[in-house]
Amino acid sequence: MAKVTLEHKTVVYPMPAFLIGAKVDDKPNYMTAAWSGIAGGEPPIITVGIRPTRHTIKGIRQNMTFSVNVPSVDLVKEVDYCGIESGSKVDKVAVCGFKIFYGKLDTAPMIEQCPVNLECRVLHQLNVGSHILVVGEIVETYITEDCLKDGIPDVDKIKPFAFNPRPDAGYQAFGEVVGKAFNIGLALRKA
Amino acid sequence: MAKVTLEHKTVVYPMPAFLIGAKVDDKPNYMTAAWSGIAGGEPPIITVGIRPTRHTIKGIRQNMTFSVNVPSVDLVKEVDYCGIESGSKVDKVAVCGFKIFYGKLDTAPMIEQCPVNLECRVLHQLNVGSHILVVGEIVETYITEDCLKDGIPDVDKIKPFAFNPRPDAGYQAFGEVVGKAFNIGLALRKA
Repeated sequence: MAKVTLEHKTVVYPMPAFLIGAKVDDKPNYMTAAWSGIAGGEPPIITVGIRPTRHTIKGIRQNMTFSVNVPSVDLVKEVDYCGIESGSKVDKVAVCGFKIFYGKLDTAPMIEQCPVNLECRVLHQLNVGSHILVVGEIVETYITEDCLKDGIPDVDKIKPFAFNPRPDAGYQAFGEVVGKAFNIGLALRKA
Repeated sequence: MAKVTLEHKTVVYPMPAFLIGAKVDDKPNYMTAAWSGIAGGEPPIITVGIRPTRHTIKGIRQNMTFSVNVPSVDLVKEVDYCGIESGSKVDKVAVCGFKIFYGKLDTAPMIEQCPVNLECRVLHQLNVGSHILVVGEIVETYITEDCLKDGIPDVDKIKPFAFNPRPDAGYQAFGEVVGKAFNIGLALRKA
């Protein structure tokens, strides 16, 4: 298995395609983020890397709150649009027809059409060069009731997708379940 | 679309299933991490949330280096095993049959069988409660030569998978491409 170098490229699979929400100058706005992930459990923590020039980070800093909205495949066009345009020039909520709701915080606008929504409060902002690493505490998690199965989030109903870059930067849905976690690996215990 | 709360749970889709490598007391060890993601571009940055009690973080702190290995579906059993067992008790490299290689750094052991490997240097360690958020600079990225198509990483050859929790915590492969990024959203521009 010969290895070649890609220099220091940010190539990983999968990356998410989340819609990060904030109130910028009192108006809800969303940006698409692939550079985001869970970082801790108690308290629940999520991070997102954002360029300081982005419109959304202005709102995050104004209110020190934001939302993370997990879209379904039905929203792939809107997700892509929110990564192309800037909220400084267009009203993304109007163009995409997003229905907004709020939870515990008044300034973390969430999207009703997204099956899962995390409401977050900023704990840290770390300068990591081209991007600001925003570290947020998840204060509440919401799910569309239809996406539960016996009270548990059901990935088959949520229908999420990933951002899998290259060769042609595609949004990709999920397929076959290839193993049960904390289970399939037990076979190696006595190997 | 009625929403219900899951309290402040860390529910997002997708999460990765990376193998994080470090040399602990001079011996390569790996842990499985779903709480990891890219955080910046220039320089390229990746983060991973790790409990301070984990064996792997001992090695990360000894050398201030680590690796992120992106597995293919062929390694799902090994990935799960590395998330179940502790390197303080078993030799995961031996059990899993990992072939190790090193790049620019001497202390970031990478797994030959994983199609993509990131070699990283620790920039920051942020205490976020139950977990330490390790912020690393990617100093080099490696790919198995067979996984390139015209010099570009090909997701169909890499065959990655995600960790999609609930209802039964499964590792899930990818399916249909549902849209081309920076493209499908353009349709909304004139809507």
